[in-house]
Amino acid sequence: MTSNEIPQAMTVIAISEPGGPMVLKPEERPVPRPGDGEILIRVRAAGVNRPDVAQRKGVYPPPPGASDLPGLEVSGEVAGVGEGVKRWSVGDEVTALTPGGGYAQYCLVHESNALPVPHGFTFTEAAALPETFFTVWHNVFQRGGLKAGETLLVHGGSSGIGTTAIQLASALGATVITTAGSAEKCDACIKLGAARAINYRGEDFVLAVKEATDGRGADVILDMVGGDYIDRNYAAAAVEGRIVQIAFMGGSTAQADFSKLMMKRLTHTGSTLRPRTVDFKAQIAAELETHAWPLLAARRIAPVMDTIFPLREAWRAHERMEEGNHVGKIVLDVA
Amino acid sequence: MTSNEIPQAMTVIAISEPGGPMVLKPEERPVPRPGDGEILIRVRAAGVNRPDVAQRKGVYPPPPGASDLPGLEVSGEVAGVGEGVKRWSVGDEVTALTPGGGYAQYCLVHESNALPVPHGFTFTEAAALPETFFTVWHNVFQRGGLKAGETLLVHGGSSGIGTTAIQLASALGATVITTAGSAEKCDACIKLGAARAINYRGEDFVLAVKEATDGRGADVILDMVGGDYIDRNYAAAAVEGRIVQIAFMGGSTAQADFSKLMMKRLTHTGSTLRPRTVDFKAQIAAELETHAWPLLAARRIAPVMDTIFPLREAWRAHERMEEGNHVGKIVLDVA
Repeated sequence: MTSNEIPQAMTVIAISEPGGPMVLKPEERPVPRPGDGEILIRVRAAGVNRPDVAQRKGVYPPPPGASDLPGLEVSGEVAGVGEGVKRWSVGDEVTALTPGGGYAQYCLVHESNALPVPHGFTFTEAAALPETFFTVWHNVFQRGGLKAGETLLVHGGSSGIGTTAIQLASALGATVITTAGSAEKCDACIKLGAARAINYRGEDFVLAVKEATDGRGADVILDMVGGDYIDRNYAAAAVEGRIVQIAFMGGSTAQADFSKLMMKRLTHTGSTLRPRTVDFKAQIAAELETHAWPLLAARRIAPVMDTIFPLREAWRAHERMEEGNHVGKIVLDVA
Repeated sequence: MTSNEIPQAMTVIAISEPGGPMVLKPEERPVPRPGDGEILIRVRAAGVNRPDVAQRKGVYPPPPGASDLPGLEVSGEVAGVGEGVKRWSVGDEVTALTPGGGYAQYCLVHESNALPVPHGFTFTEAAALPETFFTVWHNVFQRGGLKAGETLLVHGGSSGIGTTAIQLASALGATVITTAGSAEKCDACIKLGAARAINYRGEDFVLAVKEATDGRGADVILDMVGGDYIDRNYAAAAVEGRIVQIAFMGGSTAQADFSKLMMKRLTHTGSTLRPRTVDFKAQIAAELETHAWPLLAARRIAPVMDTIFPLREAWRAHERMEEGNHVGKIVLDVA
């Protein structure tokens, strides 16, 4: 530790017991101390994500060794550095993917999982980046292998993941088709760069994707729905298409006709980010800094901000996420 | 054409109408003439494969432009060469993957889809190679990415595909686990190099694979069953496991819990060989000649031969395949 202006105690939002949004309660906790390679961030803003909601409900316990507090991404200033930290100094402004513990005034992360706040970005904007950018980069570009000139189908286009995928993929030369649940959400997706937005309440996305691609189908599909979307994704995919599963909001057990997977030589895969190693996340961070951070600094892409709530009102942030009317990111302001 | 000892007509086995084995009937047909890049093979032996059975039943029509005759692999002597053929001359002994038309005295293939008869091999042994070696090479090594030190699970270990996969994968340094339907078949698989053979009539392959891998699971699974094996394959696979689907003998529509696919970051893919381009097959042929042909010439691996029938008794070969008691390849002798 190289700073001594750090208080002993901090305010956090803890999960008092599994349950609804109201179980999120302020608590006092000791400020943690950075270990080897870790930095302590004085949190200015913390992103809210669906895994936080699942953790609050008790259905997605934190991995062994991680903080019991919710919060997978933060922005703020470096307040202290552990042994061996090379890149960051006290006072640096960073945004970071955390192993948990983001709903707090201070949070520990490995230095390799932090990135600079992009030039001109506020802390609330910066806190909206890590979870969706790390997730989209790994699943769409690394695992899905999306290339310029190919077509990406993104379900849930108006979500944090969706808005990030639309912007990154179109900025990097892919054609993006997306699904969303209202005309307003579809408009928002088109403004972000989607070539076609399908209102799934009125249109069959399989037919719409086939029509938009002259019958070819989508080369990569990013899906967080599952359920009956799985078989329909197989139908909407192009020959040698890649379908990447990052959640199952419509259920994970489903029936599918796998002959489409074989005949079209599809690849169905998926991943979750949180249990991966620090080194794995560091490698994503490095690629993001090369490929995505310049686009952010140039404002060619920017996080779509839905609402900002004070840390103490984290329960309202969860309520809003569970209502499903948000477009883009919900962020907690940690004054 | 550079040879003039080729007769005008030849005997073939045609599918007189969709149906049982007895619809396979001898016919006289004109001997075809090689086009650019093609060779005419005087067929000495022709392999029998499940797609031939499906084609006979009328459920797997030949692709546009292909011969209507069954037969996807042959061995024999080059009897004529078309314009631009570089590698082969009349009299060369070859074994080839064909686009169809193998159940005949003469058969056309592109020169790049032929390989030399391995040193010391009979024509019947050589005709048993292409379909299973091309299929296993592409699906297990190219698509599935099996590496030395990894574990391969092969379903249907005593089939032509199974016996080839067991031998190739163990010769190249992988540990092979297989399933088969009787104690005799399991013994045959062990003799071919499988570390563990699971009699699926008495044992649950998921538990057996977990036990054999200290709980880790299989890195690559080659499956031709589908049906309820799909969900069980997800359960039997290791983290980052690859499941490659090459047929659906147990049905292609099935229910599965895809959360295993996401949490373990599995890759489920598949392919069929026949509709692929000549160039694609040529690239597999080149890799096989480098990696597998030396193993064959050294007799470190060899096709498992079940039965040889005369061409005119092709119906008996189909009957035997449909009974399911064969171990290894069924081949037609074309005297």
